[in-house]
Amino acid sequence: MKIGNQNYQSIWVDENDPGVIRVIDQQKLPFFFEIKELRAVDDVYSAIEDMTVRGAPLIGAAGAFGIYLATLEINSQTNIREHLSNAARYLISCRPTAVNLSWAVNQVMEKLKNEHSPESLAKTALKAAIEICEIEKENCRQIGKHGLKIIEAISRKKKGEAVNILTHCNAGWLACIDYGTVTAPIYLAREKGIPVHVWVDETRPRNQGSKLTAYELGQNNIPYTLIPDNSGGHLMQQKLVDIVIVGSDRTTRTGDVANKIGTYLKALAAFDNKIPFYSALTSSSIDFSISDGLKEIIVEERNPDEVTNVSGFAEGRIQSVRICPDDTVAANYGFDITPARLITGLITEKGICRATEKDIKEMFS
Amino acid sequence: MKIGNQNYQSIWVDENDPGVIRVIDQQKLPFFFEIKELRAVDDVYSAIEDMTVRGAPLIGAAGAFGIYLATLEINSQTNIREHLSNAARYLISCRPTAVNLSWAVNQVMEKLKNEHSPESLAKTALKAAIEICEIEKENCRQIGKHGLKIIEAISRKKKGEAVNILTHCNAGWLACIDYGTVTAPIYLAREKGIPVHVWVDETRPRNQGSKLTAYELGQNNIPYTLIPDNSGGHLMQQKLVDIVIVGSDRTTRTGDVANKIGTYLKALAAFDNKIPFYSALTSSSIDFSISDGLKEIIVEERNPDEVTNVSGFAEGRIQSVRICPDDTVAANYGFDITPARLITGLITEKGICRATEKDIKEMFS
Repeated sequence: MKIGNQNYQSIWVDENDPGVIRVIDQQKLPFFFEIKELRAVDDVYSAIEDMTVRGAPLIGAAGAFGIYLATLEINSQTNIREHLSNAARYLISCRPTAVNLSWAVNQVMEKLKNEHSPESLAKTALKAAIEICEIEKENCRQIGKHGLKIIEAISRKKKGEAVNILTHCNAGWLACIDYGTVTAPIYLAREKGIPVHVWVDETRPRNQGSKLTAYELGQNNIPYTLIPDNSGGHLMQQKLVDIVIVGSDRTTRTGDVANKIGTYLKALAAFDNKIPFYSALTSSSIDFSISDGLKEIIVEERNPDEVTNVSGFAEGRIQSVRICPDDTVAANYGFDITPARLITGLITEKGICRATEKDIKEMFS
Repeated sequence: MKIGNQNYQSIWVDENDPGVIRVIDQQKLPFFFEIKELRAVDDVYSAIEDMTVRGAPLIGAAGAFGIYLATLEINSQTNIREHLSNAARYLISCRPTAVNLSWAVNQVMEKLKNEHSPESLAKTALKAAIEICEIEKENCRQIGKHGLKIIEAISRKKKGEAVNILTHCNAGWLACIDYGTVTAPIYLAREKGIPVHVWVDETRPRNQGSKLTAYELGQNNIPYTLIPDNSGGHLMQQKLVDIVIVGSDRTTRTGDVANKIGTYLKALAAFDNKIPFYSALTSSSIDFSISDGLKEIIVEERNPDEVTNVSGFAEGRIQSVRICPDDTVAANYGFDITPARLITGLITEKGICRATEKDIKEMFS
């Protein structure tokens, strides 16, 4: 998608140096547009940990490239299998909730099973990582096509009045490789001339909504309004929201969705106001091994400083301000679980299905 | 309640100069403790508007003192009735959602009906304003006594393990004259040695939770944990919340509660997780003239800058940082309406009642 007039992916291989992976530094957006180089497994780990890269599909892709960078670290003294398994374990440990990370890392590791020379390992790993990016892009494109139908139907019902979409966090192209999951149908609707307007939850504590979703929608000419996370319920009561679409960091085979903390509250409000609530996700975020989101999904706890402090732009630079007494204890849970019963449907690359074990199984068998 | 080792009210008459009303500047808390002087109707209006004073009972009291200050502005040229009605209208217009403001202003105006000399007007207005403060304080004390019973019952059920109370915004002593509505039962529980712990919603956009509730609980030795507004649902799913208690800026005679934006989302989560959800309020916040909160209560829209910027403390001073692209459009609704069906009960100065027209009528007839 576009930044200024130029097209970007959120991750790519340097065109002059295949030993360098490049990513947009999402910690600096929307205030500074900077590209960061990842040259080693440690760089990838740090970038995922400090959220230079974030979003389920993107951290999957970054993890895949991490294994590729691990193959470049092999020398004559390296115990290859041990080195690669350690790298895989290390990368996967970085963020436990999103399933894409382990899925993508394991995908690449699987392809390396029958490779032995450093050269063939590197070649195969690079190919596998790029393939994951291409698959995720194509998946997002398909999500766009399927999700568009829902937006079109609402638009028809509203006789062409703008369709008001509420979203939480950022499941846009920045979170994916391109297009986004939540945003793909929105970008496609706009392309087709269907008027849309997005309510953007700021998404405390890290403000991925105000910093990333607002930024990418603005850069791609989608009208939006920024709101505090507290506002969605009121907007829904006042019939100012036509549909809620959120992403997913991990989806159970029964349709429970782990997504950014606060998603569950919006699902409750949508349900209470009879507003359709969808999760847009690629199948890489489905964890077929689990059936009870509340019991089986590990919810990460992050640094409490993200709660006690807010970073933003002032006097030409990114600064952090404390918003509470200096001895304040804070808790910072990264995700919550939206039970399938509150979800109208899942928008996936294969089509739209209800959030039930039966429908998910049918769609992905 | 205490700040440091000293007892304070949130508003009082200067002991040396009865023409001066003093308030704690709540815009500067928790970073600086400063006392501001109000000497004229305009000072009161500005203090309410910029939230130097805020919280339903406190803005009521401030409005009452505003009429008193209006009586001090009378001179030989003044058309007294016109002057006072203008002052009343002006003060009431400042914040349309909270009913206490108009209630308190009208209370004082009513008492001035049969007074004619500037001296008797001033004397009567001052007496009436102080009386409102004393009534609100006593009401909070009574709310404390009644609410304590609920906390005690939970404590018994948990065999003395800490009772986890979630609250949104600040309905503490800072919002009232003293004790608070939500906090009165908590302070009383602590006094009685019942272990309590408060989950404090930060309450974007103005962060009254992180700035005021955290501050006053800390100053009065109540253990608390600051959380983003997004977290409450997850905590309730994980059974980490025993009870939700919030304030009310306006309560319909049928029990709908207008309170800080985001309250409704917590009520939905409490309902979904079978956790008791109470609103603690003095009867001055009940508007007996309305029965449908969603249709009849005006929800204020405030300055969008409060959403696009966050103020906090850095480098020794209060600073504001922008959290979004610089051309961002934002919406800032101040309140939402929690329908009575989601409310377990109202904790009032007269006792606890269900949020129904019948029960409210019985309690206040």
